[in-house]
Amino acid sequence: MAGFPVFASRRLRSTPYTERVEASGLSGYTVYNHMLLPASFESLEADAAHLKKYVQIWDVAGERQVEVVGPDARMLSVMMSARDLTNAVDKRCYYAPICDHKGGMINDPIALCLGEDRFWFSIADSDMLLWAKGLATAMKLDVEIFEPDVSPLAIQGPLADDLMAEVFGEAVRDIKFFRFERFAWRGRDLIIARSGWSKQGGFEIYLDDSKLGVALWDDIAAKGEKYNLRAGCPNLIERIEGGLLSLGNDMTIEDTPMECGLAKYVSLDSHDFIGRDALLKQREEGVQKQLMGLVIEGDMLPPVAMPADCFIGDEKVGFQTSGVYSPDFGQNLGFAMMFGAAMQEGTQIEVETVKGRRKATVTSLPFQS
Amino acid sequence: MAGFPVFASRRLRSTPYTERVEASGLSGYTVYNHMLLPASFESLEADAAHLKKYVQIWDVAGERQVEVVGPDARMLSVMMSARDLTNAVDKRCYYAPICDHKGGMINDPIALCLGEDRFWFSIADSDMLLWAKGLATAMKLDVEIFEPDVSPLAIQGPLADDLMAEVFGEAVRDIKFFRFERFAWRGRDLIIARSGWSKQGGFEIYLDDSKLGVALWDDIAAKGEKYNLRAGCPNLIERIEGGLLSLGNDMTIEDTPMECGLAKYVSLDSHDFIGRDALLKQREEGVQKQLMGLVIEGDMLPPVAMPADCFIGDEKVGFQTSGVYSPDFGQNLGFAMMFGAAMQEGTQIEVETVKGRRKATVTSLPFQS
Repeated sequence: MAGFPVFASRRLRSTPYTERVEASGLSGYTVYNHMLLPASFESLEADAAHLKKYVQIWDVAGERQVEVVGPDARMLSVMMSARDLTNAVDKRCYYAPICDHKGGMINDPIALCLGEDRFWFSIADSDMLLWAKGLATAMKLDVEIFEPDVSPLAIQGPLADDLMAEVFGEAVRDIKFFRFERFAWRGRDLIIARSGWSKQGGFEIYLDDSKLGVALWDDIAAKGEKYNLRAGCPNLIERIEGGLLSLGNDMTIEDTPMECGLAKYVSLDSHDFIGRDALLKQREEGVQKQLMGLVIEGDMLPPVAMPADCFIGDEKVGFQTSGVYSPDFGQNLGFAMMFGAAMQEGTQIEVETVKGRRKATVTSLPFQS
Repeated sequence: MAGFPVFASRRLRSTPYTERVEASGLSGYTVYNHMLLPASFESLEADAAHLKKYVQIWDVAGERQVEVVGPDARMLSVMMSARDLTNAVDKRCYYAPICDHKGGMINDPIALCLGEDRFWFSIADSDMLLWAKGLATAMKLDVEIFEPDVSPLAIQGPLADDLMAEVFGEAVRDIKFFRFERFAWRGRDLIIARSGWSKQGGFEIYLDDSKLGVALWDDIAAKGEKYNLRAGCPNLIERIEGGLLSLGNDMTIEDTPMECGLAKYVSLDSHDFIGRDALLKQREEGVQKQLMGLVIEGDMLPPVAMPADCFIGDEKVGFQTSGVYSPDFGQNLGFAMMFGAAMQEGTQIEVETVKGRRKATVTSLPFQS
């Protein structure tokens, strides 16, 4: 991949870990919530292979938190979330699609319940803070909404438990998936969740003091050698292989959770929330488009840089949203929003690529290797 | 400047002009409203010198539009804007600070009035769309809010009028500052405003069809040779010299328009709007912090990449938000949010820089050359 350099400013923020990331073989950035997010180190292929075998340390500070706290915090959180947070409890994480009144996706954060009247929404790349504040302001709610000084650091890969146990103690192994516990570290209580944006397992550490970023990185790196720890980042190949969807790439405000295969995270029957009426209607009538997998024929294609149209003959039947070559599958994989009959698994289509039109097969998600 | 590459995706969008920009000597990007925004071509210094003498073509598609349209569009626009839009009329642009209920700045767009019930907010780098939608949703307003397919292209510099007249006709010269007119081009009506993010004069063309980006660029470039037209972009040196503030850099949701020297764009006495009570109180009591200029002693410093603390002795008296070396001034210039007594013009302070603490003088804005 070739690209042009990007420069940090106060507006396009560096992170508490940037110094270490840039000294660890970084080769490219993306930008996420107005913040630098590493996109590759050695190469997408080498990073993916290492991630699947060992353990990596990821600067995911760009996963900013929207803190909602105060007497009306739970009411607002329930109203915003398609996932029912009415009975959300401390120490649990909830994948929570946030929709507009038409059911269109505004964000798909992980909600962390920090108590009866306090939530963090660990957000994807849109200013959900402004959505929450707009609602709260118009409704004159008794709630504070702000971005706290919290910068997640992820430890991902099959050796994540072993490494984390050396740093934070054996109890870290007992954290269940999408649960979190508080661990003492340098006089602080750090929230550590079993979560992260890969399918290889691991943890996210919610560091709540920017000034300690380098210390946290170094404390973990000091124990990393015997596990072959490397700096890494959310990896395009691994996330597509694993069927992990990206807001802004695979789903936008034009798409509903139903259309993105996220119906199981939508609690249509237990609570009222913004977008519910539209989603109830969609459940009844069925969807007209659906996010699907694509397996594209031919030799290796570069990562998809913009939506690419899909055709049956001359008819546009969808568009590809993400795509990359998977060395493990030996195929070009992608996600695509498919329309009408072309939503069907097994449909044969053609897709525009930088190397011309290619034959492709529509598949279910996640991909079956 | 050195930096790491950044890569486009559907989420981190390229623009209708990217192909031309990358073939025109681009050397670096920033990211603005989830979109690539050119940051430099030959160098900051050479770009600034050329901009002040000739004319440049700028891909500012990242200045996205938030369209607000429908029976309640004007009511919502008036409610959101600290600048009174009650009597806004077609063909006029209004610099319109958007505040939260504490007066903190959410965005500082240019509002274009497109008719009785239709506005575009040409936004700085935050998802003002979600703020507007949050308000409208909670208040059940009869209004549509969306991002139209509009990608501004700016023509900036002292020869802008001559170049634009060749492409769009002599009538373009008659557009007054912060007014716009509609011009026929390839069968479309293009909105062209006399505006732009420099102090060198020029226009912004609101192209409303992405597919025509290359054609618009090429039609202008074809007439550019005799004016020494070059590709350029909002320039850090020129904008600091000119006192142009940047949302996210110099002002954030923690700052009010009063604190940023923007009181003249706040209509406190003529209309009600979100944040008015807080701003009325601030007008009465005075501000406790104020955005000021800084002139920093010593040799050339690189652009400021993150906020830098300002001191008198051991006391923190403010922080620098932006900064760059100005060849024309022969000095390091910057903006800084100064506290209390240190807001005073002429105050002698010290500021942290990558070359250690430097003596600096607090000045009014814009800088006097």
